[in-house]
Amino acid sequence: MHFKTVALIGRYQDSGLDAPLRNLAQTIQAAGSTVLIEAETAKNTGLTEYRIGDYNEIGRQADLAVIMGGDGTMLGAARTLAPDKVPLIGINHGRLGFITDIPLHNATDALTSVIHGNYEIEERILLEGRIMRGDETLFSGIALNDVVINRAGRGGMIELRVELDGSFMYSQRADGLIISTPTGSTAYALSANGPILHPRLNGILLVPVAPQTLSNRPIVIPDSGLLSMTITALGRVESGASVHFDMQTWSDCQPGDRIDVRRAQHTAKFIHPVGYSFFSTLRRKLQWNHMPQLTDETE
Amino acid sequence: MHFKTVALIGRYQDSGLDAPLRNLAQTIQAAGSTVLIEAETAKNTGLTEYRIGDYNEIGRQADLAVIMGGDGTMLGAARTLAPDKVPLIGINHGRLGFITDIPLHNATDALTSVIHGNYEIEERILLEGRIMRGDETLFSGIALNDVVINRAGRGGMIELRVELDGSFMYSQRADGLIISTPTGSTAYALSANGPILHPRLNGILLVPVAPQTLSNRPIVIPDSGLLSMTITALGRVESGASVHFDMQTWSDCQPGDRIDVRRAQHTAKFIHPVGYSFFSTLRRKLQWNHMPQLTDETE
Amino acid sequence: MHFKTVALIGRYQDSGLDAPLRNLAQTIQAAGSTVLIEAETAKNTGLTEYRIGDYNEIGRQADLAVIMGGDGTMLGAARTLAPDKVPLIGINHGRLGFITDIPLHNATDALTSVIHGNYEIEERILLEGRIMRGDETLFSGIALNDVVINRAGRGGMIELRVELDGSFMYSQRADGLIISTPTGSTAYALSANGPILHPRLNGILLVPVAPQTLSNRPIVIPDSGLLSMTITALGRVESGASVHFDMQTWSDCQPGDRIDVRRAQHTAKFIHPVGYSFFSTLRRKLQWNHMPQLTDETE
Amino acid sequence: MHFKTVALIGRYQDSGLDAPLRNLAQTIQAAGSTVLIEAETAKNTGLTEYRIGDYNEIGRQADLAVIMGGDGTMLGAARTLAPDKVPLIGINHGRLGFITDIPLHNATDALTSVIHGNYEIEERILLEGRIMRGDETLFSGIALNDVVINRAGRGGMIELRVELDGSFMYSQRADGLIISTPTGSTAYALSANGPILHPRLNGILLVPVAPQTLSNRPIVIPDSGLLSMTITALGRVESGASVHFDMQTWSDCQPGDRIDVRRAQHTAKFIHPVGYSFFSTLRRKLQWNHMPQLTDETE
Repeated sequence: MHFKTVALIGRYQDSGLDAPLRNLAQTIQAAGSTVLIEAETAKNTGLTEYRIGDYNEIGRQADLAVIMGGDGTMLGAARTLAPDKVPLIGINHGRLGFITDIPLHNATDALTSVIHGNYEIEERILLEGRIMRGDETLFSGIALNDVVINRAGRGGMIELRVELDGSFMYSQRADGLIISTPTGSTAYALSANGPILHPRLNGILLVPVAPQTLSNRPIVIPDSGLLSMTITALGRVESGASVHFDMQTWSDCQPGDRIDVRRAQHTAKFIHPVGYSFFSTLRRKLQWNHMPQLTDETE
Repeated sequence: MHFKTVALIGRYQDSGLDAPLRNLAQTIQAAGSTVLIEAETAKNTGLTEYRIGDYNEIGRQADLAVIMGGDGTMLGAARTLAPDKVPLIGINHGRLGFITDIPLHNATDALTSVIHGNYEIEERILLEGRIMRGDETLFSGIALNDVVINRAGRGGMIELRVELDGSFMYSQRADGLIISTPTGSTAYALSANGPILHPRLNGILLVPVAPQTLSNRPIVIPDSGLLSMTITALGRVESGASVHFDMQTWSDCQPGDRIDVRRAQHTAKFIHPVGYSFFSTLRRKLQWNHMPQLTDETE
Repeated sequence: MHFKTVALIGRYQDSGLDAPLRNLAQTIQAAGSTVLIEAETAKNTGLTEYRIGDYNEIGRQADLAVIMGGDGTMLGAARTLAPDKVPLIGINHGRLGFITDIPLHNATDALTSVIHGNYEIEERILLEGRIMRGDETLFSGIALNDVVINRAGRGGMIELRVELDGSFMYSQRADGLIISTPTGSTAYALSANGPILHPRLNGILLVPVAPQTLSNRPIVIPDSGLLSMTITALGRVESGASVHFDMQTWSDCQPGDRIDVRRAQHTAKFIHPVGYSFFSTLRRKLQWNHMPQLTDETE
Repeated sequence: MHFKTVALIGRYQDSGLDAPLRNLAQTIQAAGSTVLIEAETAKNTGLTEYRIGDYNEIGRQADLAVIMGGDGTMLGAARTLAPDKVPLIGINHGRLGFITDIPLHNATDALTSVIHGNYEIEERILLEGRIMRGDETLFSGIALNDVVINRAGRGGMIELRVELDGSFMYSQRADGLIISTPTGSTAYALSANGPILHPRLNGILLVPVAPQTLSNRPIVIPDSGLLSMTITALGRVESGASVHFDMQTWSDCQPGDRIDVRRAQHTAKFIHPVGYSFFSTLRRKLQWNHMPQLTDETE
């Protein structure tokens, strides 16, 4: 038995998850595993005929967590469960995501097969960061996608000094700076013209948003380094700079504050059915099969 | 009667155009216009029961030219017929193009309606250029998409000095330089990261291909100017630089040669059914309806 | 006499402008023109021995306004004086700008020469915009650089539907959208990867900031069109969207609000000494003379 | 003694290297090492009073090779000496390069200090590739910067199918594809809008040149993978596709040919004086200290 106890977590905001979640619970039980329903999920769906536990209990007891929702739900669960090393599998009831790659209509078969041992495991790095004012830690957080530093207010720009392991990299004036994991390279960083990093690359990506230095480019560094970003100036920003760890936001950074970011000790573990392909997901999501045939002579 | 004599031109290389071209000819005749088949098209398809004429005769006699093929066939015909001011309409028997926007299955209705006066006319500028060695003109040509200057050989790069109306713009070292009309802005220039120019913009676009100066950017200038590009150096290019006027190529440019490009006196005139939308074409060709939902928290 | 009455305007925030402004006033008087000091400038510098007038009086009486400051001071004065058609000339006491291209140490000679008729005049278009909620105008403004629509809050994104003259262009989800004049194409739009528009191009530029649709590109449209941007959704933006007309900001746009932008009726008129070159400014500001010699074999 | 035998290699094409090379030889000898002059260098400069050896002998006997020239000379020597694990140090007598970071005027002090043991060593990966037609190897090569596949002829484009470890990545139609090491990320790949990879990143970078699929982006993969690029079509390319391993070129690839690229077994070893900083080089070469102050209100 690969996964003795399997937790079931549903997206909070969603109504209408009762029936599909109940089906998933039956599938898990039928495959011979013990079902553990996440407490809020149980409350929202009335799915009370199984064992119920909060995230702490899931961390301690589950051998696998099945997430029903989109990439966002998956990322949130991954951040929480990473220290307990619980692997996650994502079932998507809407449009397929980058990580939640099992469609609901295929969930019974896929989940049964996974529980019987037919799966691939993929580790994704997390970033941990802290916001420092002098020696004081103002905030600390974990991110699976990215840490984003940007202006908090209505306009203006921020000026940052970036260091790697204490060595000066560059100063830049921009709307913001994205420090991204390989997972996050297909998120906000991609909109800001960053490259795609393969999930197994041991790298961290820095992408500026609207940089004033036109020769500035995205940079990929080894994931063993310590990045330090010091806010050196805020131009026309009334209310300070913001720092986002995925969706958790600290919004009152001032000049002189420093944001330290490094790879976290733990990783997130994603389970995929055998045959999972990162590039297949990329092609589907970014429509790389589509060549627009530009206004060419050869058409 | 808007279009008394209507020429019919088919893509050369295509077999299997006989039946659709015959249908188009009947449609034109049924709408009350005289049909004039382009000589090569007649020869290739055996469509000999109508008047036949070469491009010269089409230029003198036709009030409209119906082009069956892709954007490439259309562009070629447009360059040839522009001095005679014959408007063109494009029927696409494959995937819709940027310019040939009437699908074959809709051609009878669309063409009949156009001949009866329900159409919109759109003018597109052309570029004329000449390659100068001292006072000698080595080559001159016309382009509806773009004039491209690039290395002719296997590798290396070219160095250009660019002037507008005799004023120095910039020097650049790059794979090449694209001088594009608004029509060409959705062709090669778009691959090289250029902006899109609306067809009615009175502008000419310069887009470098892989420029060494990282702060170099595409530039749009008024279409009233004279551009002069002088080849100042060829790095590791054994066989000279090439200049392409759409598909016509001159391949032996040497350092010191100058390429002069300006807006041509004549324009190409495209006929569209009422309701044509440039942006609708853009959205369809570039799949702007597709938002990939990146790996976001909100999914 | 080309410029009978010449106004003198200094950057507000700057101390230490007294002596240079006094010198400029003497230069103007020595060249035979009447000096008119802008009221706030007079107050800040104690330069009270000349006629003093507010912007209204300058608009009515001045034939030329001399601006001492940076591009920002110049843009502000240009917006204000455009309806009165007063041309402007910029003296820069710091680093040269894109528009304020006369260094202070050269101001006496340049200004004397200009007043004696040796100058070139350059017209720059302005944008006028209004924010509509149903039939109600919430805000209206004028911009010489750009109108920027972006998220007002700490994170998230905005979704816009863009129309040109009532025709649907595209919908986009992004950090923001920049609608820029040619003047603004070397400002924020350039950071966001937009092309450069020549000042005499009759075009308006749209540049998305961090767009989710990866095939989206900057677009240049004729400056005769009416652009309408409707906010269709705000993702994770607590406090509404912002609209900036250069630096004037309206910060509480909600889904359904519409921003209309078109070319303003008046233009800004900039005076340059004979020999002014837009491209020379570009080369200097963007360091196009610098080719970094990448890690190449040929070095 | 860190470096008992030190080889000295000068750029071939350069005249006027006699005196500086003679000085370097004296410096090496004075520091207690045995000097070994590369044979061609000796012939070109008449520097015959030291031991002379070809690259084979240098590979067998030298503990350090001092290269005088630019990055290109350095890269060539690095490719040749990598299998023998001879570390290299670069002296630049012109403009400083990315790798050759010791200016000539500083060479005596720097070299003496290095020979006495004050240095940092940096390993750079190499790529090895082979061009396959069925089972036949047409060509094989080594690259320190990049393997570039592009059209050989005057125009047109190539279509490639890219696989990683046998898994399909994507097909693309483009001018070319750059497969780059971290070292090459500041070479041609940077012109083509690729990101910068830190020298210690264990990654390989793929950058398309002018791709037709607008959503295509540079990708960074782990350097443990095997990349296979199959040429699936050549559009308007008369004379086949080219493959470049740094500067060595194979020019007659046809549809069906496959190019396999992987990390080479050996690395290049570069020696730097203590205090060397990759980012300092980047800032200097790309002028990141330069913020152009765009046409902003705040100026």
